[in-house]
Parts: sequence; C-alpha cells; structure tokens
Amino acid sequence: MKTRKILFGTAYYPEYMSCDRMDEDIRMMKAAGMNTVRIAESTWSTLEPRENVFDFTYIDEVLEKTQEAGINVIVGTPTYAVPPWLVRKDPEIMVETKKGRARYGHRQLFDLLNPTFRCRAENVIRHLVSYTAGYAHVIGFQIDNETKHYGNTGKYMQEAFRRYLREKFVTTERLNEAFGLAYWSNSIADWDDFPDIRGCVNGGLMAEFEKFRRTVAADYLAWQARIVSEYKRDDQFITHNLDFQWKKFGADIAQDGYSYGVQPDLNHYEAAKCLTIAGTDIYHPTQDELTGAETAFCGDIIRSLKDDNYLVLECQAQAFKYWTPYPGQLRLHAYSHLASGAQGIMYWNWHSIHSGYETYWKGLLSHDLGTNPTYEEACRIGQEWKKLGTALCKMKKNNRVVLVVDNHSLSALEWFPIDKDLTYNDVVRWMYDSLYEMNIECDVVDINALEPDRYDMIITPALYCITEEMLKKLDTFVKSGGVLVSSFKSFVADEYVRVYPDTQPHLLQECFGMSCNQYTEPGRTKLTGRQVRYIAELLNPDKNAGTERLAMYEHKYWGAYAGITRHEYGRGCAYYIGCYTDKDVLKEVYKKAAADAKISVPLFSWPVIMRSGVISSKAEGADRTLHYILHYSEEEREAPCPFTAARDILNGREYRSGDNIRLRDWDVLILEEL
Amino acid sequence: MKTRKILFGTAYYPEYMSCDRMDEDIRMMKAAGMNTVRIAESTWSTLEPRENVFDFTYIDEVLEKTQEAGINVIVGTPTYAVPPWLVRKDPEIMVETKKGRARYGHRQLFDLLNPTFRCRAENVIRHLVSYTAGYAHVIGFQIDNETKHYGNTGKYMQEAFRRYLREKFVTTERLNEAFGLAYWSNSIADWDDFPDIRGCVNGGLMAEFEKFRRTVAADYLAWQARIVSEYKRDDQFITHNLDFQWKKFGADIAQDGYSYGVQPDLNHYEAAKCLTIAGTDIYHPTQDELTGAETAFCGDIIRSLKDDNYLVLECQAQAFKYWTPYPGQLRLHAYSHLASGAQGIMYWNWHSIHSGYETYWKGLLSHDLGTNPTYEEACRIGQEWKKLGTALCKMKKNNRVVLVVDNHSLSALEWFPIDKDLTYNDVVRWMYDSLYEMNIECDVVDINALEPDRYDMIITPALYCITEEMLKKLDTFVKSGGVLVSSFKSFVADEYVRVYPDTQPHLLQECFGMSCNQYTEPGRTKLTGRQVRYIAELLNPDKNAGTERLAMYEHKYWGAYAGITRHEYGRGCAYYIGCYTDKDVLKEVYKKAAADAKISVPLFSWPVIMRSGVISSKAEGADRTLHYILHYSEEEREAPCPFTAARDILNGREYRSGDNIRLRDWDVLILEEL
Amino acid sequence: MKTRKILFGTAYYPEYMSCDRMDEDIRMMKAAGMNTVRIAESTWSTLEPRENVFDFTYIDEVLEKTQEAGINVIVGTPTYAVPPWLVRKDPEIMVETKKGRARYGHRQLFDLLNPTFRCRAENVIRHLVSYTAGYAHVIGFQIDNETKHYGNTGKYMQEAFRRYLREKFVTTERLNEAFGLAYWSNSIADWDDFPDIRGCVNGGLMAEFEKFRRTVAADYLAWQARIVSEYKRDDQFITHNLDFQWKKFGADIAQDGYSYGVQPDLNHYEAAKCLTIAGTDIYHPTQDELTGAETAFCGDIIRSLKDDNYLVLECQAQAFKYWTPYPGQLRLHAYSHLASGAQGIMYWNWHSIHSGYETYWKGLLSHDLGTNPTYEEACRIGQEWKKLGTALCKMKKNNRVVLVVDNHSLSALEWFPIDKDLTYNDVVRWMYDSLYEMNIECDVVDINALEPDRYDMIITPALYCITEEMLKKLDTFVKSGGVLVSSFKSFVADEYVRVYPDTQPHLLQECFGMSCNQYTEPGRTKLTGRQVRYIAELLNPDKNAGTERLAMYEHKYWGAYAGITRHEYGRGCAYYIGCYTDKDVLKEVYKKAAADAKISVPLFSWPVIMRSGVISSKAEGADRTLHYILHYSEEEREAPCPFTAARDILNGREYRSGDNIRLRDWDVLILEEL
Repeated sequence: MKTRKILFGTAYYPEYMSCDRMDEDIRMMKAAGMNTVRIAESTWSTLEPRENVFDFTYIDEVLEKTQEAGINVIVGTPTYAVPPWLVRKDPEIMVETKKGRARYGHRQLFDLLNPTFRCRAENVIRHLVSYTAGYAHVIGFQIDNETKHYGNTGKYMQEAFRRYLREKFVTTERLNEAFGLAYWSNSIADWDDFPDIRGCVNGGLMAEFEKFRRTVAADYLAWQARIVSEYKRDDQFITHNLDFQWKKFGADIAQDGYSYGVQPDLNHYEAAKCLTIAGTDIYHPTQDELTGAETAFCGDIIRSLKDDNYLVLECQAQAFKYWTPYPGQLRLHAYSHLASGAQGIMYWNWHSIHSGYETYWKGLLSHDLGTNPTYEEACRIGQEWKKLGTALCKMKKNNRVVLVVDNHSLSALEWFPIDKDLTYNDVVRWMYDSLYEMNIECDVVDINALEPDRYDMIITPALYCITEEMLKKLDTFVKSGGVLVSSFKSFVADEYVRVYPDTQPHLLQECFGMSCNQYTEPGRTKLTGRQVRYIAELLNPDKNAGTERLAMYEHKYWGAYAGITRHEYGRGCAYYIGCYTDKDVLKEVYKKAAADAKISVPLFSWPVIMRSGVISSKAEGADRTLHYILHYSEEEREAPCPFTAARDILNGREYRSGDNIRLRDWDVLILEEL
Repeated sequence: MKTRKILFGTAYYPEYMSCDRMDEDIRMMKAAGMNTVRIAESTWSTLEPRENVFDFTYIDEVLEKTQEAGINVIVGTPTYAVPPWLVRKDPEIMVETKKGRARYGHRQLFDLLNPTFRCRAENVIRHLVSYTAGYAHVIGFQIDNETKHYGNTGKYMQEAFRRYLREKFVTTERLNEAFGLAYWSNSIADWDDFPDIRGCVNGGLMAEFEKFRRTVAADYLAWQARIVSEYKRDDQFITHNLDFQWKKFGADIAQDGYSYGVQPDLNHYEAAKCLTIAGTDIYHPTQDELTGAETAFCGDIIRSLKDDNYLVLECQAQAFKYWTPYPGQLRLHAYSHLASGAQGIMYWNWHSIHSGYETYWKGLLSHDLGTNPTYEEACRIGQEWKKLGTALCKMKKNNRVVLVVDNHSLSALEWFPIDKDLTYNDVVRWMYDSLYEMNIECDVVDINALEPDRYDMIITPALYCITEEMLKKLDTFVKSGGVLVSSFKSFVADEYVRVYPDTQPHLLQECFGMSCNQYTEPGRTKLTGRQVRYIAELLNPDKNAGTERLAMYEHKYWGAYAGITRHEYGRGCAYYIGCYTDKDVLKEVYKKAAADAKISVPLFSWPVIMRSGVISSKAEGADRTLHYILHYSEEEREAPCPFTAARDILNGREYRSGDNIRLRDWDVLILEEL
Repeated sequence: MKTRKILFGTAYYPEYMSCDRMDEDIRMMKAAGMNTVRIAESTWSTLEPRENVFDFTYIDEVLEKTQEAGINVIVGTPTYAVPPWLVRKDPEIMVETKKGRARYGHRQLFDLLNPTFRCRAENVIRHLVSYTAGYAHVIGFQIDNETKHYGNTGKYMQEAFRRYLREKFVTTERLNEAFGLAYWSNSIADWDDFPDIRGCVNGGLMAEFEKFRRTVAADYLAWQARIVSEYKRDDQFITHNLDFQWKKFGADIAQDGYSYGVQPDLNHYEAAKCLTIAGTDIYHPTQDELTGAETAFCGDIIRSLKDDNYLVLECQAQAFKYWTPYPGQLRLHAYSHLASGAQGIMYWNWHSIHSGYETYWKGLLSHDLGTNPTYEEACRIGQEWKKLGTALCKMKKNNRVVLVVDNHSLSALEWFPIDKDLTYNDVVRWMYDSLYEMNIECDVVDINALEPDRYDMIITPALYCITEEMLKKLDTFVKSGGVLVSSFKSFVADEYVRVYPDTQPHLLQECFGMSCNQYTEPGRTKLTGRQVRYIAELLNPDKNAGTERLAMYEHKYWGAYAGITRHEYGRGCAYYIGCYTDKDVLKEVYKKAAADAKISVPLFSWPVIMRSGVISSKAEGADRTLHYILHYSEEEREAPCPFTAARDILNGREYRSGDNIRLRDWDVLILEEL
C-alpha cells in the first residue's frame, strides 16, 4: 500500500438491505469521515444468480457512488459462501467432515479441493476482478474470507494426504516408525492398507493431517491470489481476512464469541505468503471486560507476519448485546488497533442486518438505520483522523522480545491435553497477556518464521513439538547472550509428535541446567504461596551447574522439586517455568528476565497500556517516536510521564518527566517524544 | 358436551396388564366415584395385530363392563404409536428429522404425510370408530394423542413446504426478499435450486418452516376429525389431548418433566378448530414445588381456545418420584383444574405399568394394584363431586385481561435467543406467573385469535414478530382506552422475522411515547435496586410526549436511559418493560396498570390463590358466582374474606366481610357469593 | 498355576519402541526383581503385517532374552486390536453400534461375530500359540484383552438375538407378554415383524439384549480358550484380563478414569468359566485420593469368580498426571493387591510410550527410559518379594459375608434410573465401601453364582431383578439363621424386568416384616439427622410382626413411614434400608447386622485397613494366618494390635495385645498371628 492515509471505513452490503438507501449510506459514511468500503465477499448468489449469468448491478452502483464521494473500495472475491445452484450442480461441493457431509446453508462449508467448486470459483473471480480492477478507487482485493480447512475429511483431502505421506516417507516402514503405528496394531505393510483417517486416534498422525490441511487451505488462497494477480494493477493490494481461534460464550445458536488465540485451521504465516498486505478481523469483549489484550495479541501476530503494517478488515461496532460500547470505548478500540501497527480499520459492518443468521451481529447503524451513540463516536474518530492526516500512518516497531507460537503444537496438545481446562492457547494467552499487562511489547512469530538473532528475549509457551534443528538454534541463542523463557510442556516431542526418548528438556538440559522426568496434577501444591493449577513438572535443577531455584513447590512430597529455575548459560540466561500459576508469579520471572536482557519496563501497568513505535518521516528529516497511552478502565487515574518531554498529538498538551498524566475513563493519548 | 356432570375418571389400558383384573379395576373405580374412562389410544398393535386383521377383544370387554357399571367411555384413535408390521411394510413411515430417519420403538415418531401411514391409519380409525360409536355410553372420541410435527424434515414435508412457498411468493425474487436470502449467498433464481432445508440457518425461513409444519400437524388432526365425524352421533364429542412445551429435569433417559409453556410444534388455536371440545394434559411439579401456576396457565390457554370449558384428559396421579403427592395435594390438584374451567379430569393412568418405557410414570394404583394413600384421596374427591352434583359444572369466566402468546415468535427467538438462559416461554411464564400470583385472572390467547375489543388490558410477553395490521389494532386499542403492557423484544420483526428497518417499537413509538435503538447485556446494571438480567433495552422516553420514566437504569453509563416507561395515549395507557428483572418489579407495574384499567386486585396473593367464575343456572333463575380459594402451602394461614358474604359450598361454612378465612395446608374452599 | 512364587512383572512391548534397548530393559527388570513379562496382545499388525504373512522377530527376541534372564512370559493373543489389512479385506469387521459403523483406529471396535474376523483371528492365534507353547518359560496365555460386546447392534448380533428370543419364547404371544410389548403398540404377531433393536425403548427387552450380548462376548472368549487349549501344555494357564466399569474424569480425549464398578458389557462369572486362572486390571485414584477401595472391591470380585487366587495382569505405575505416586504409594498398591488374594502383579506398562493414543498413560519408566522414583520403588518391592519368597503366596480367604452383584439389574436400572446422579454401581460401591472402611471383609459374587449356605450374611445393593427361585432361597437363608441386608430397589422385578404386580418386596414381605408401595424423591427429608438423597422408599413395617423401625423419616408428611427396618425372622434377621444417605448411617446398620451374624468388627477403621487370609503350609505342618495392615494416609498414626501376639513379617517386629502399632504415611505391615 502506497497511501499514507489511515484507512477508515466499513464492510458494506447493500445487497442485504430490503430498501435502497445507498445515497443516505454514503452521506452518513462521509459524515463519519470514512474513506473506504469493503464489498462483495459472500455475495456470490447475487453476482451470479445462475451459472455463468452475471448481475453486477450492485457493484456498478457502489463503484459509481463511492467514486463520486471519494471513497475507496476493497473488492472481495465472493467465494466463501457458495450459491444454491452450485450445490445443486454438484452436491459433493459440500465439505465432508467427521460428522458427515455438511448441509447447505451456512458459509464456509465447502470442499476446498472439489474440482467443480474450483472451476466455478475461478470463473466468478475472473469476472469480478477483471470487471473492477480498472477503477482508480478500487485500491485492492480481498481473496476469500476467513479461510480455513473446514474439518475436511472428504475423498479429495484424504487422497491428497495419502499422496503427501507417500512422497514424504516413501516406505510404509518409515511411516509406521514416524508415528509409532505399531501401537494398537495400526501399522501397514502396503500403502493401500492406509485406513480412512476419520477413525484415527494416533495423535501424531492426526497432527500431521491437521498440518497438511492447513497447507491445503493456504494453497487455496495462493491459487486465488494468482488469479487476481492476472488482473490487478501494481498499486492494488491483495489481502485476506485472517481470523483467530474463536472463544465461544453465550447461546449455542448465536455467534457470541471473540478472537482468542492461534488459529488451528490455517497457518497464518504460510497463508500470508501470497498476500501483499496482511489483513485480519479482531473481535474482543467490551464493556467491563474490555482489556485491550485481544487487540494487542492479534495485532502483534498479524503485524509480525510480514513485519509490516496491516489492515483490520473487520472490527466490531455494536456487535452482540454484551459489547454495546460504553461512551469512549469505540474510540479506544480504534486507537488500540493503530497502536499495534494497523494501517486502518473497517467496521463490521455498516448496517445491522434485518434478516438471516447475523441479524444480531450489530453494525455501526442499528436496525433503525438512523444515528446512534456508536455511530456518533465513529464520527468523532473519523474527524480526528482526518485532522491528524498522515501523522499516525505507517508506524513501525522494533521489538526486542518475541513470543513463539506453533499451531502444530496446538494440534498435538488437543490430542494430549495438559488439562481439560487448559488448552495450548490458554498457555499462549497466559504468557502473552502477562507481557502485555507489564507493557513489554513483543512480536508474536510462528516457529517456522523465527529468526532468533533478531531478538534479545524469546518466550516459548508450551512449545511442545520442535525439531532438533530449532533446539540447537535456541541453545546457540542463549549461549550467545539471549534470554530464553520457556513454559512447561516445551521441547517435549519432535515434528511427528514423538516424545523424545531421552532426558527432557530435549537437547536443552545443559542450557536450562535442569532436567525433568516426572510431572503431576498439582492438587494442593503451591508455589510462592500461590495455588499451582493444571500441571506441575517436577524439576531437578543441576546442582553442579549452579542453577538457581527461583521457586520450590510447597507440598509434603513435591517440595523436593523446583517449580521455576533460572540458569546462566554462556553469555545468556534460560528460565524454565514448570507449572501454571498466577500471572503475578510469571510477571516476577519476566521482570528478572527483562533485566537480564536489559529491557526496561515502564513503571505503570495495565489498565494503563503503552504501545510504541517509530514513524520515519523523510519530509521532516527525522523519525518520530510515538507512544500510545491507552486507558482500559472506567476509573480516572494518573500515570507518571515516562519521558523527558512529550506532546499529546491529539490535544497538543505537553508533559515533562515528573508530570502526572491525568487519564479519564477509556482515555487515549498519543505522546510524541520531544 | 351436553352433560352437567363433572367427568371424573382415568386412562385405562387393560391391554398393558399381564393379569386379568378388569372386574377388580371397575370395582375400585366405582369405589372412587369415577364415571369415565379413556381407552384405546396407543394400542394399535393390539387392535390390529396384522394388517387388516382386527382383534377387538379388549374393546368388547371394557365396553361391556363399563356399561354394566355405568361408566362412560372416551375412545381414542390408536394412531400415535404405530405397530411393527406397518414399519416393516414401509420403513419410510418413520419420520426423518435433522438427525436422520427415526428408528422404530418410541411413539410419535412417524411421518404424518406418509401415504402408507395415512392409508392404514384411516383404515384402523374407520374400524374402531364405526365399531364403538353405537354404544350409548361412548360419550366421545379423542383423535390421536399429543400430536406434533415430530421434527419432520422428510421428503413429503420438504416438497409440501416448497409448494407452499411457491404458491405464497410466486417468484423467487419475492422469496429472496422476504427472508433476506441474499445474505451469505443463499438466494435462488430458480425454484429448483431451493436447497434441502436441513442445513438452513436463516432464522426467518426456518420459523416459516416451523409454522408450516405446525399447520401440517393441525391438518392431520382435521383429517382424523373428518373421518370420525362420518360415524359419531351428534351427542358424541371430538376432542384431542393438547400438550405443552415440556420442561425436562431429572435423568436423560427418564421422562421426568412438566408442562411449562407454549407448544412449539403445534399451534393449539389452529388445531382446536376441528374439535368440538378442547382437551389437554397438564403435568406439574408437586410436593414442595407445587404452586398451581402450571394448572392455571395451561388451563387458561386451553379454555381460551374455544372460550369454553375443556377436558383435562390426563392429569397426574403419583407420576414420578418427585411428585408423590403430600396428603391433600391430589385433591388440591383436582379443584385447581375445575377452578380454571375444566369440565372434568382423568388421571394418567389407572394402574402403574409393569413393563416398558413408562414403568415409573406411576398411576393412581402403585405396582401392587392395591389401595394406597393417593388412590384413597382420589376416592375422597370422587365422593365430594358426587355430592356436589352439577353445582360446579360449566363455570364460565369473563376475564378483562388477556396475555398474548405466539409460537411464531417462539420459533424466531430460538434462532435469535434473548439469552442462552432465557427462552420465549421463560418470558411468557414470567409475565403470566406474576399475574397469577397477584390473583389477576386472564385469558391466554394466540395472537392470531386476539380480539382486542374484548379486553381492558393486553399483555405481550416478547411478542417479537407481529404484522403491521396487528400493530395498528394495538395502537387503536390503547387510543380507545385500553391498557397495553409489553415486554422487551416485542414488536421487533414482521411475519417473515425481518426486523423492521425503522425506529422501534415499530409503529408504536407514539403509543409508548418511547423509542429504542440500543440494547445490552445488563452486566452490573440494576433497576429499583434489583439486578437486571439477560437483557436491558436502553429506552429513550419522548420528552415532549410526557412519557413517565417508571424506572431508570442504575449504571454509570446506562443510567442515562429508562428501563420501564408509562405513557398515557388517547384514552388509554401503554407500559413498556425494557428489561428482565425480579417479578416484584413487574408486579408493581401490573398494580399501576390494573389501576389504569380499573381492575381490582385482591388483598391476598400467592400462596393463597383465588380463581373465579359464574355458573348460569336456569333452574335457579340466577347466575351463581363461585370463587375457588386454593392454598398452595404446607403452612396454615388466614386470609380476609373479600366478599360481603359468601358460603363455602364444600362444607357450608359462611364468611362475611372482615372475617378471616382459616386455611389448612393444601386447603381448598369454594366460596359462593351470597 | 503351580508356582509358589508371586508373579512380579510388567507388560512389555518392544514393538512400540523406536529404539532397540531390549538388553537394557531386561537388565532393569532384573534389577527390579521382576520375574514375568506379558507380551504380544495388541500387536497383530506387527505379527502378521499382511494376511497370512507372519513376522515373529520380536517374539523370538523377547523369548530368547527372557529365557536367558530367567524371566517368565505370558503370551497374549493379539486379537483385541485388528490390523488395517483386515478392515480393508472386510470393512464390516468394524462393529456397528447405535451410532453407526465404527471407524478404524481405536482398539476393541470390531464385530465379535463377523465371520471374516473369526477366521483370521483363529489363524493368528493358532500361529502364535503353536509357536510359543513349547517354550518352558512361557507359563501361560492371555486370551484377547478386556473383552466386551462393544455396543454391537450389527446384523449378526441382531440375527442371533432374534434366534435366541425365538428359541426361548417360541410364540410371539409369549414374547409380547414377557416384555409387555403391547405398550405403545410394540407387540408383534409375526416373528418377522421384530423390529431393528436400535430404536427399542422397552427397558426389559433392552436389558435382555444386554444380557445376550454379554453372553456373546463370553462365548467368544470360550472359543479362544478352546483354540489355545489345543496347543498349551497342562502346566500353562489360560487367563483373561477382566476389567471394570470405568469412571471417567479429566479431558474427554484423554483416558483418565479408573476401575469403578461392575462391568456392564461382560458378565465376569460367565466369562471366567473358560479360564484356568482369573486375571484382571485394576486402576484407581492415587495421591490424596488413594483409599484402597478399588483394589479391595475389584480384587474381591475377581477372587470370588473362582474362589481362588488371581493375577493382576495390569496395575498402574505412573499412569496419568493425577496418579504420579507419592513415595510409598506404589509399594502400598502392590501389597494391597496381595492382601485381596492376588497371586502377583504386572505393571502397565514397562516403558512410557512415545507415540500414539496412550502416550500419557505412563509406565514404570518415564519417556526418558532411565531410572526415576517410581521405578526405584518398584525395585524395593521386587527385593522384598524375593526375600519373602513363598511366604505370601496363595493366601486364601474364608469370608462369612457376601455382597451380591448383578449386571442384569445394572442394565435394568440404566433404563429405570433411581436418580440421574445415582447409578447401580454407585449403590454397590456405597454398600461395599462402607463394609471395606469398617474392615468387614466380603466376597463379591454374581447373583447367578450365589450359594447362600456358604455365608452368614448376605448384602444386596439394588438387586432390582431377581427370580422367584432366588427369592425363595433368600427367604430360606434368613429363616435358617442368616442375616440379610438389602437396600432400596431390591426385589422389584423379575428376570424380564417386569415389576412384580403384588406387594413389594416380592415374596419377602414376611421375611422383612415390611411392605412398601410408595417412594419419593427425598427433598428435605432427613433420617437420624442426616440428609436423605436420591430416593426414599416409604416403608410400612408390619406392626403385628414386631418389626423394628431402626429409623423413621424426619419430614412433615413422610414422618409416618420408616426408612430402615430390622426384622427377626425364623432363626435369622433381615434389614431393609429404604433410602440413600450417609455411609455413617449404613455403618450403624452393618454394626447391628454383624452382631446378629456374630461377626466381629475390628476397633480401627479406614484409613487403617486390615485384610486377612490363611496360607496352608504343608511344609511347616500348620496354616499361617496373615493380616495385612494397610495405611491409606499421609498422616502418621497408631492402631491397637488386635491379636494376642503377632509378628510383622516385613521387618520381624512383634506386637502383643495392648501394644500400639505405629504407622508411617502409606505404611504396610503384614502381621502373622503367633
């Protein structure tokens, strides 16, 4: 993206409205200072009501009216919701999962590998993209939407998986060996004996299948990107709306939930390769539960994909009843996204919809389509961003800490759960959120993309599966002066989810100065007075290596073992946290680790959040350092100015070291260092 | 029904007994003062053990012995449980639902539209009805039993639904428009593209499908009624055993549960059209949980269907372990039914059954088939009713309050739940039970049967879907002096479950003097000091209209909005209750509303319940006004006599204004005004 | 088994290891004092990688190395996990259940009656047994593993069941009568009308089906035993690994759970007939939840099968995270098994497995395959057992109390649950555990194997179904001086689960001096001040029979009824406990009953457990009486020596009457009476 403007806009579906009010919509968007709309994804049956019969009336009208209004357009390929005629043409388009063939109705339930689907999808994409690419105000394309593998266990998927295994392992002996198939008599001597994967209970093979399916989904996106690339101009971007593991709450039939963790059904790093700019949607609790953690976590993941700014293609307006924003919260949301490095935000969506499944996923406008407090707050945001112009755009970060994520470990731990109430993503969020609350910023990077040299501190939450190659890199990282902080269940198994058959942590006992071959449900075990939960690995610090026992378990029998260790190794230092406990305990470890890594930690912490970056400014001849101060609380409070001198670019007020910054409820400041 | 006797009897299935004890049964029934038995429904395989081979031995014997004993008989068509030979003949008789084809075994699991079923059902009905109609003591027929649509998604049902849609909408464009099918690409351009309904996630279309299926079930009953009418005498009635939404508790495999709310799978109003007298079964918690609310609520619904007396074709004897009645409770049950307008009660059932699914749905007799405390209490009831003769029969009500129910709104709110823990029926019961506990009697009427002019006060619990025609009637009702009390989620959507795209409450902002375009999960919000739960609509009273804010929310941000409003409009008054909270708050509103409607409310309230009516008595030349005083408590208490003078017709005791009426545990009085 | 050694060993699967470390394994086993391994069950795909192509490499190697090391071998037939080629050959091998055809992957999911399976199973059994039977150190064979019917509703099972019914009942009339099929129109007039059993909701017929399926599973084991018998030497035993109803906890996908109650899917008594020695696996909570109850209960069941010593073919090492043993617990487990009459124990398993479903069902060795505290404790056990030589072997019991179990009643009560939170096995465990905690030892015997004359006291927990023949035996038992203690829901129904249609308890009112025809959910009911839960049968003691009311209900209305009765009848005495309440109340009843039966009860109770037996010792010329003192607590305590004089054969210490025995945490003593 070449623009130095912040994108501010909304998803827009006039197709879904029963009344024609496009002029009024555009007027209200302009009044809100919006400069972009995203259209067309999910409207296949409107665009192509019968096979190869196209009706682009809505496209025409939106393009024309936005052009007049000076509003840019992102065109989405409409493939993520297939039209009824396509399913009638080939019922096998519906994805087959462990539960059987999906029935038509819901979105995102087709077989990515079905040839009929691919053929008709290609056709509609070519028509739509060629039709729209010529418009100057079409600034980019979104391919598909929230793509995942949809639990596909269909024949195409299973055949492709068998081909993949055969190419990878060549002989059945190697396959048997890799996954331990002799167990319960699952080994094969003939590739044709490979059974229907749907009954498989081998966690390693199933994790491999998950990994393979993630690749299939990423390949599908790359295929769409190639088609779009045949038509798009150089200045038009290709993006995708990457989403996260959804945490459900509320009624089963409703969609209540929020962006919680690493996506299990698509590898973001793999998928992002075909994009020119990363895009995402981020939803999060609001009202009393608004913490900013999801906005930061998801933003850090998406920014790290290309180490660049990204688009928030969907963010919440009013959404569910739980999230009707308090006054000030919508504005706080918006600045929180920018603070993570977003290049702009688009609401989902403009109008609340009057029919269909998402009737109560409310947009900026309520069902009455008039003004309302949320829309009015959006207007305030729009006006501020118009005024601030390019001052906030393209903020870059240069984080010294990285938190490593891995959806292969996620899959493995679904088969070998740490506890019924503790998932992989719970551990990730426990370690991430503790950093976030301390105002230690980090990148969040897929293990496959990790370059240890770029960082001073590496954090591994439950990095269960890891290759020996990467283990050696981590060893070298610490030896060379890095600080490694690892949680329980890290470094346990290899890439086939085979537990390493020697002393744990595999290859890193010397690094951590510790080994472990027992673990337990904590029961009444405590650590520094706090209840240990879910797991306690019984750590044996190496007495000869001078390993520091940061905390011993408090328990009649487990008291003989350490729960947290610290070991200086080479020029660096390695921490191992053998159990799950309060975030406060973890934060104490982080404090020490940050000191080891010479990373300074602000004096204030959540609910006062600081997120920083640098804007390189050729015009002004110098980089500008910005610090977003985000206040996630309804209480007023003060925080000390952490800088020699800074100016809040939102209202021009200046602060010096020693000044107290007064924060109203749900407040936002953007301090520029002077 | 011409009789002026109260029916008192039981369901009777000698077919289910392994021993022949019909003489003893009849003797014990007579000893209990019983005058009626209901037979034969569910005994198809006994009546017709092989196709077209009939064996009416049990019918013969029961008819003969009841005739001798002077006991009347209601004959049930046996269709609600199909015989094995019929399923062998055509396996497609078993209903197909979202979960697949039902398997044979349970009752009420056949496809109402299957032609083989219809053909064989017609045959057995014709045989049985023609065989029995001639007996003088056969007083009527029950068609089928607790009929519903059984979740039918079979081919006949789907084809019929498509035909119905096509006839209704003619073009696919209108269909798309009505339900917003463009959403997620569900629109069709060709009727043949209409997909299998089983995958549909469009709440509006699915609510339409539910409505259609309710009509199919009602049509099936009408079809049976037509067949029976070919044989029955004029003095023989046709009834049906209408049941309610069942509230499950206890073990999954057991049938523990009770009659809770509006029936989702049959529209009572539609179904009752073919009946000459309404019939029902009502089950309810007992022991410490006995409140009388279900007896009143279900009775009010059934009485309102034909604005006439009705039969309780099944009521509980000992039933489940939870319901073994305390001394006095069985008698209290019996009088409670009469107090709602029942023309009689029949126990389900006579003997506890020794095998099969309902072994522990215990009858009047325990498995030992001897006497027991429950049977003995039935004897007391029977003796009292013999003595009271016709004095209690055909009591009519002339209620001034109506509570409006709508199973279309029920369906819609299953797709768009207010909260995972608050169903449509929860709101209905919240509003009904509050009236009941205050001793404000009401009719409970289907929205399609509502005649506003008949009432002074209309109550709408979550009347989510409503036509503009009815909205105008409600507006007129208030303007003309009526009192309207509406809860949250009323007047939101049209008959296709499309949210009205303008200011809410649609067409009634002027009437309520209020509008609303935001709502929220209440969180910590309170109202008059009570916790608000599930939903808080943020009401904007119209300042210029003089709307009264009966209660403002208590909350830092939502405190700007009203939670309950009152507005004088024309000659009437409209109340809007925007949130769910304690019944006490609702009762305060009712108290004001009743005053507005000039309805007087007794000084006492639950557990002392008063239910009243009038018996027109040509013989005595004057109407008699009866007030049942029903005491739902194990504590003794006193209540002031609310009448100038009255006599308890059960024991002849007289009370004057100012007297205290002494109530024993689970006591019953029937005061006749003097 | 001829040996006078205690078997001490482990399951051993070198097939599952990715590295060859058999020499090291054998070395470590020897160091632990092990003398036996169990091999080969579940390794079919390794033994026969293609149909009829055998590869016995692992067998050869294990047999050779164990022979050298002087370790005995139990060879398991490998049939309980079928190889992929077999499912490819005939997909119908996978069991069909109510949920459809099982998918390949998990063990124990095949159709026991499938002819292809039987043919290939026979082939591999013949190959393996003939191959190994000649080795001197192969001491016996285990047939299959944890065999059950696997919920089989496939065509072979259903056809066999129909044949069985037809042979049993001859006419459909008798079938209809036995199960009350007229109910809900389920009766048939033609055997061909018998419907698919999968939809059946007749609890009696379904319990019959369960019983039939248990017989099919037992017949399958007998078939394997016959094949093995063709090859085995006389000194080689045939055993089977009988398991128990599993109580699940923890994560759904994990196998966390433990041996809880009577097995629903196999009748142990029936299955054990073909075995020469009974075998079992017993798993139980550990750490703070270790009580010893499961070890005692399951051991008492298995010992009672053949009234003989038995093998614990699997017992837990480290197992799940919940069960990592505290120091001393593994040793306590081991002696607990011997105290119940086990002839030896084998750990499941030797190595923790590095791949596959049971990766975290940890063995003696952790995944690092080195030493660890659990292995080290096993070494201590092994050394002690080596030293004690034959002194502990073949201990016999001669219990005077029997607790009667019945998996037909279990099935019936699944259809007619006492309460959603109280299963048949909960009642069994309530009654067993109370005995156990009081140190009253008992046999636990299947109703079909009960010989009342052998005992002085019979206990029947929820013996719901019972034949009249057995009822008469119980009557005679009491008359002749026996003590009968029966719980609620005993003696209710006949062998077809028909409730007896006369006064309950059927045929035993005279014996108990009590009758009952009402029962209730207890609500607030108490008994001797304790809350009654789940059920209260309202007992009517016979006033003329002098029946003692041991406890009346405490309740406004139910206070008129007794909850527990005692009745002297003939020379004996019968107790009836009509409700579920605290174990303390039950123990008071047991105390009286034991006094009636002249059984003395020790002064100490759980957590100090005493389990006793006699070792007949021809050599020494006299029997030796041993008392295991097992201390299930982490607290130290003292217990009085209950014997005139005794010596702890573990450490030689002697105690006299009046001495206090000092017990350390998780302590074990074996007192030999002097």
